Amino acid sequence: MEANFSYVIDTLFALFAMVLIIFMVPGFAMLEAGLVRTKNVSAVLTTNIMIYAVASLAFLLIGYTIAFGSWENTAMSVYAAFLFQMAFVGKTVNIMSGGVSERVRIIPLTIFALIMSSVIYPTVVNVSWGADFLEGTLLNIELYDLAGSTVIHSTGGWALLAAILIMGPRKGRYKDGQIRVIPASNIPLVVLGALLLWIGWFGFNGGSVGSIATPEAADTVAKTIMNTNTGGLAGAIIAGVIMYIRYKLFDITMILNGALGGLVAVTAGPDLYSMYVPILVGGIGGALVVFAVPLFDKLELDDPVGALSVHLVNGIWGTLAVALFSSEVSFLAQLKGIVLIGLFVFVSSYLVLSVINKFIPFRANDDMQIEGLDVNEIGVEAYPEFKRAI
Amino acid sequence: MEANFSYVIDTLFALFAMVLIIFMVPGFAMLEAGLVRTKNVSAVLTTNIMIYAVASLAFLLIGYTIAFGSWENTAMSVYAAFLFQMAFVGKTVNIMSGGVSERVRIIPLTIFALIMSSVIYPTVVNVSWGADFLEGTLLNIELYDLAGSTVIHSTGGWALLAAILIMGPRKGRYKDGQIRVIPASNIPLVVLGALLLWIGWFGFNGGSVGSIATPEAADTVAKTIMNTNTGGLAGAIIAGVIMYIRYKLFDITMILNGALGGLVAVTAGPDLYSMYVPILVGGIGGALVVFAVPLFDKLELDDPVGALSVHLVNGIWGTLAVALFSSEVSFLAQLKGIVLIGLFVFVSSYLVLSVINKFIPFRANDDMQIEGLDVNEIGVEAYPEFKRAI
Amino acid sequence: MEANFSYVIDTLFALFAMVLIIFMVPGFAMLEAGLVRTKNVSAVLTTNIMIYAVASLAFLLIGYTIAFGSWENTAMSVYAAFLFQMAFVGKTVNIMSGGVSERVRIIPLTIFALIMSSVIYPTVVNVSWGADFLEGTLLNIELYDLAGSTVIHSTGGWALLAAILIMGPRKGRYKDGQIRVIPASNIPLVVLGALLLWIGWFGFNGGSVGSIATPEAADTVAKTIMNTNTGGLAGAIIAGVIMYIRYKLFDITMILNGALGGLVAVTAGPDLYSMYVPILVGGIGGALVVFAVPLFDKLELDDPVGALSVHLVNGIWGTLAVALFSSEVSFLAQLKGIVLIGLFVFVSSYLVLSVINKFIPFRANDDMQIEGLDVNEIGVEAYPEFKRAI
Repeated sequence: MEANFSYVIDTLFALFAMVLIIFMVPGFAMLEAGLVRTKNVSAVLTTNIMIYAVASLAFLLIGYTIAFGSWENTAMSVYAAFLFQMAFVGKTVNIMSGGVSERVRIIPLTIFALIMSSVIYPTVVNVSWGADFLEGTLLNIELYDLAGSTVIHSTGGWALLAAILIMGPRKGRYKDGQIRVIPASNIPLVVLGALLLWIGWFGFNGGSVGSIATPEAADTVAKTIMNTNTGGLAGAIIAGVIMYIRYKLFDITMILNGALGGLVAVTAGPDLYSMYVPILVGGIGGALVVFAVPLFDKLELDDPVGALSVHLVNGIWGTLAVALFSSEVSFLAQLKGIVLIGLFVFVSSYLVLSVINKFIPFRANDDMQIEGLDVNEIGVEAYPEFKRAI
Repeated sequence: MEANFSYVIDTLFALFAMVLIIFMVPGFAMLEAGLVRTKNVSAVLTTNIMIYAVASLAFLLIGYTIAFGSWENTAMSVYAAFLFQMAFVGKTVNIMSGGVSERVRIIPLTIFALIMSSVIYPTVVNVSWGADFLEGTLLNIELYDLAGSTVIHSTGGWALLAAILIMGPRKGRYKDGQIRVIPASNIPLVVLGALLLWIGWFGFNGGSVGSIATPEAADTVAKTIMNTNTGGLAGAIIAGVIMYIRYKLFDITMILNGALGGLVAVTAGPDLYSMYVPILVGGIGGALVVFAVPLFDKLELDDPVGALSVHLVNGIWGTLAVALFSSEVSFLAQLKGIVLIGLFVFVSSYLVLSVINKFIPFRANDDMQIEGLDVNEIGVEAYPEFKRAI
Repeated sequence: MEANFSYVIDTLFALFAMVLIIFMVPGFAMLEAGLVRTKNVSAVLTTNIMIYAVASLAFLLIGYTIAFGSWENTAMSVYAAFLFQMAFVGKTVNIMSGGVSERVRIIPLTIFALIMSSVIYPTVVNVSWGADFLEGTLLNIELYDLAGSTVIHSTGGWALLAAILIMGPRKGRYKDGQIRVIPASNIPLVVLGALLLWIGWFGFNGGSVGSIATPEAADTVAKTIMNTNTGGLAGAIIAGVIMYIRYKLFDITMILNGALGGLVAVTAGPDLYSMYVPILVGGIGGALVVFAVPLFDKLELDDPVGALSVHLVNGIWGTLAVALFSSEVSFLAQLKGIVLIGLFVFVSSYLVLSVINKFIPFRANDDMQIEGLDVNEIGVEAYPEFKRAI
């Protein structure tokens, strides 16, 4: 009976967590659709849908086996285990795709999504959460990363950095050392998207505990979700306060990115923190976003959605934070994990992106960018009836 | 104890599934609001709300008893059982209402929703999932239809076909054999709506398994959700590939309808398929949508949201597919179910629609259509502050 | 085993309910963003995010302890218990903030949110659901209020009434006894928001039962959710019917407010009602909204989202309704609770708002209101690319 109980309740719990994570699909889609210009909205939405479809199917056909070695699982239904893991995959690719919005073409991006979700990301999972082919070698990774500050967020961030280096900034974004501000086109969508991501995070981090079937496990799950939420709250508040001090304005896109930064930061160890620690971890996460966004712009790394600041910077910070705030976790092990995974993802992504780019260029040419990707790639305008002011 | 456990866990599971299905209410609403022109957006949204309200209440007062005979249920709380079934009802009406958008008037449509949800649909449920008054007769239906490829989707589709025949196309849609393209007005809403429907499908199909209280049941639920999702993935990809081959463009509305077509197709037997089969079933579903949409237009059956292609065509395909891919299911039994239910729904809907139409015409007159239904039926414009380009 | 089972299943249930309630964050945000003019959309969204962040964190640091006395809880994980209660807090403040949209400034509002969520609301919870410092005194409150018709909705409503009295109407709203109609700017967002609130209500009311771990408890939870939903259905239908009778138009914003009014009305006792009673309770709730909205306008209490009618009027009605429709509940006890809590919240809010207002005025000045709060407070326009028609 007790084994049956665990199996049933943990399967139900995994399905619940999976569904929450799937809300991140509309989450990313709405966030990015709101942040780009109207002429690229259909393109960014199509990209999001194609990534979910291709990455998930590739993970079914190839990736899951690379990551976990086999389709056996006794703690819960293997189908639920797959669904939960599958829900993660698209996110990593999404992090990457969002940051090259408004100039990336759909076909090469979809090909990269295919490779990233069937090989690159599953390899990272293999060495951190999965079958672990590095076990017993010098490169063995002993990272503590409950729900993927490194495995998901930095991984997406490193791939994005490689992509930005290869594709360059959007046409007209930087000129003579000046940065041209390109405003978000639909703020309600940005807010809706960010909040759906936030809700998805409860499933992402809570579900990563793996079981809810004992009182101790139930406590850990609930504490994980609580700490996750607190990280987001603190990130939003700190970002808001800094923006107000600097500009006397509450820039909502920065506040939301602060919240997301806080959520990324707290993701590596929400099960280990006592209940006030995430205020610090997430608050620093929010601050890092506010300072990183202009820094990347100064480096002319054009990232329309702030994904480098949210996911790469805070993925690193969050992974280190576990060691700082939990005595059980070694700082060096965390650092080693960050460096090795970062190197692997950046190098392999750079190579794969470069090869694809030789045959099918990622970058939409200047005319296409000026006219907008919707007309050129999708054939469907996002808001055909609304007269444009700019 | 074990009986208590099942009762509790299955009630919780039914409530979870029900909530996911209720996300289809905003799902349909946003999808349709995005697909119609801005001048009809408030009308289509109002229709969606009134359908949910009227259909659900009618199912409470009349329909549930017709379908299931009594309010007794020992496997789980009867209130949860009702809520789960109630969540289905509005969907069937929604399928029908979406396809006659931009010319249907609210009052007669609401009256039809009332009759469909209290009599027509409950009768279909009675003979397929419910009390079964045909049992032992020659007309006995032995359809295998886990979550309603026929019972929900074709049923909605046949009612829609009857409605389109009675109401005719939107003014100006077909002229001298030419088809005028009427673009969707808000693509982010279309994407949001389709994704909410997708998520709702997990509850629809997963919940239709009926229990999660044993390890075997938990496996079936998880496999059902996994296969459901795979059907959607394949439908989206195939639709995207076909669109690109034909037009060198990734039409996002067609990709989403391909995903929905794949989801409809896989709905009859996701519990029976092994894990690669839904790629085929859903992929064919996506392809069918791409080919059916222009076909219905050639027949001048004007369906602004593609509901005939998604729900009727794939409802039929999906019901037959179970027999093709599962040895447990008889092709003839499936065919008999499709034909009998189709005949019943089409004929009864046609009659009811015709009678209502005599007294309160469904079709908005030409002037109302030109001015838009929002002004004429709702008195609230959807986007009053945005200047119209067209 | 049985105790473990309860602990696990009730923790999972509380987390499920909590997640549903968190969907009310985008729910309120989208509803309000759709109801205000485009020039104030970013401001209202920012307010919503800041309220969620500040109110939740204040409840973590101070409010929960004031409400419940300690962080001990044996029935389920205390972290889940906290999360569930925390999900409520922001709603109370949201009710208040929505009604002063389009003229309230962010900083003073955030300060009030901080005080309301750390002291005022927790005190109300203390005396009704919590540690109860009034027990044994003459002021002892023996209110039956399952999920907060009074504790949440009237509380928010009384605070809003105080805020409207202090801040006054939006510039130009009332002139020479005439009421200027200010149309909602984005109806799809209004509908999306209202439906997310509706879904959140299932968690709000269902979760308030507190346990699902026995068959009896499971029945109560399912019945509670069913009755909650029925209240919303009836409210929508009655509001629609009245609007049609009066104006021959189906004003969608009024229909949605009718639904929300029905949901508020049924919130005090959905566990006690037999299954047809909510049709009456919710239907009256919907009617009250339709009549209260113009009444508040006649009193020049300017409330752009109808929050007084939905939450205050129906919070009172719903609390009284429990006594009318359930023999277990005393009318006088309900009345006493309504009056005492109303007095406390109105007076304390009025005082706190007045003090804050002395130092940091709540009301944006006329120029800021004309130009819009987005430019003045956020620095981010909601829809910068769309040309304005008005």
